[in-house]
Amino acid sequence: MRIVVLAGGIGGARFLLGVRAYARQVGAEVTAVVNVGDDLYLHGLKVCPDLDSVMYTLGGGADPERGWGRAGETWTVKSELAAYGAEPTWFGLGDRDIATHLVRTTMLSGGYPLSAVTEALATRWQPGVRLLPATDDRLETHAVVSDPDGDGAQRAIHFQEWWVRHRADIPTHRFVFVGAENAKPAPGVLEAVGAADVLLLAPSNPVVSIAPILAVPGLREAVVDGSAPVVGVSPIIGGAAVRGMADRCLAVLGVECSAAGVGGLYGGRAAGGLLDGWLVAPEDEETVVPDVTVRAVPLRMTDESATAAMVRAALELM
Amino acid sequence: MRIVVLAGGIGGARFLLGVRAYARQVGAEVTAVVNVGDDLYLHGLKVCPDLDSVMYTLGGGADPERGWGRAGETWTVKSELAAYGAEPTWFGLGDRDIATHLVRTTMLSGGYPLSAVTEALATRWQPGVRLLPATDDRLETHAVVSDPDGDGAQRAIHFQEWWVRHRADIPTHRFVFVGAENAKPAPGVLEAVGAADVLLLAPSNPVVSIAPILAVPGLREAVVDGSAPVVGVSPIIGGAAVRGMADRCLAVLGVECSAAGVGGLYGGRAAGGLLDGWLVAPEDEETVVPDVTVRAVPLRMTDESATAAMVRAALELM
Repeated sequence: MRIVVLAGGIGGARFLLGVRAYARQVGAEVTAVVNVGDDLYLHGLKVCPDLDSVMYTLGGGADPERGWGRAGETWTVKSELAAYGAEPTWFGLGDRDIATHLVRTTMLSGGYPLSAVTEALATRWQPGVRLLPATDDRLETHAVVSDPDGDGAQRAIHFQEWWVRHRADIPTHRFVFVGAENAKPAPGVLEAVGAADVLLLAPSNPVVSIAPILAVPGLREAVVDGSAPVVGVSPIIGGAAVRGMADRCLAVLGVECSAAGVGGLYGGRAAGGLLDGWLVAPEDEETVVPDVTVRAVPLRMTDESATAAMVRAALELM
Repeated sequence: MRIVVLAGGIGGARFLLGVRAYARQVGAEVTAVVNVGDDLYLHGLKVCPDLDSVMYTLGGGADPERGWGRAGETWTVKSELAAYGAEPTWFGLGDRDIATHLVRTTMLSGGYPLSAVTEALATRWQPGVRLLPATDDRLETHAVVSDPDGDGAQRAIHFQEWWVRHRADIPTHRFVFVGAENAKPAPGVLEAVGAADVLLLAPSNPVVSIAPILAVPGLREAVVDGSAPVVGVSPIIGGAAVRGMADRCLAVLGVECSAAGVGGLYGGRAAGGLLDGWLVAPEDEETVVPDVTVRAVPLRMTDESATAAMVRAALELM
């Protein structure tokens, strides 16, 4: 069996732990197509937060408390950069993490595409699933906000500035995926989607993790037109985001922060949407998404086996 | 009074501590023209070992035992790079040091010349002397060696590979200053040399620290043709290099490792050389360099006041 998962960072990483555990039970192959919309250059280093969260988590090197970055991280470079007055100061890079970015940036500068770099980094981490960036091309999620530093005129700021610096807490009008129109799916992505027996949407942020993946021209079409059933897992439980600030992102789109709201945003395939199945939490068992099979099971990813049980339930939905 | 010092890294940095101390006593201005031939890119970062040794030492941030790099340094990034198998592994960058290189590399990538970057970095370190790279252009010292990795054919390797990886201990034919013919003195260098009341050659390595500075077209001419007297300080005491491996560098040129040998290499101005005066150690008081005033004084740079006394003696030579 071939399982393809569309995933963002922290939530996607935890979900993939369960997918990998399930896949090992049944002998399945897993490919993760990971969001790159959060990627940015900081101090000249190419940082890919979602790819790294997935890689570190699956490779056993992630900080389990913080949810992002490396376990046992130190912050010497960060404090030295601050001593130089180097901007930005609102995004902290750990020392261990910086080594990843140095290797990545050097390879990118040498002409390797991000997908090749990701594969090279994964030779160290052995994530046990195939990691593919959604695209090798520039695709950056920006938030169009009322300029917090200026006269209130609309201005597009990088997702990380919106998320980390402003805690998603400024007047926001919409999101744009800069560069998406010229992006191509990374090598292997369309092939993986086309060959998949099932496609899973991780319980990642639908607006800024899953949507930027699907914004790559051809990728959404491959999912919608493909033969594999598509099952989504709700990132909203009982009207609240399990982690992160999905509520704020949904509010920008005018979508209700609920399992039904997100399910409706993805939409049923019969109506041109994505979903065949939608997995929700027990407290959301009344959820209805037109033309979509909804099932309620526990969705707290407390450990790998609990998450693997979620994955099993998702696959049984088909 | 205006003092201009041509200087390499560690020895140059210690000497400049004494020059600064002396200058504070007499109210002089000091400009250091620093070697860039050792500079290299490592893991995508522009590293300037000599400029940094001078900056950290004068700024009070250098490791006093090791002589290079930052005090209180940590090596997290280095061990992570090794875990990725990232080459080269023979040159270790400390975590604190890396912040300097990140700021520098970011500014260089943004189009700032090295001289402007050096000035920006110095706003943090407040070295108390004006630091100028010899040139903003690429000028790299390479050693032409019998290829240690191959069939023994001649091959040019970067100075740092020769010095750090091979400990200067492989068959070496000559040094070349790659890019020198197209390099221009950095802004302010010719002006400083032209306005100097005295020029000092720090007790740095004559072959790979001072020579690459003078290899910048126009720089040697400005020194030789200028009105300021030129006084050199011998890096060789009693036939041995005070630090580093100047003996091995001199051997490549077929120059005797002695105060007389280095004095002769620089040469007297009357014969088209550099020197008006040559300061040697008491054990070398018999040293003769044709047409050059030689004086013997203690040359051990044990502390700032001892070094300042050396500087005073050098200036009194004129």
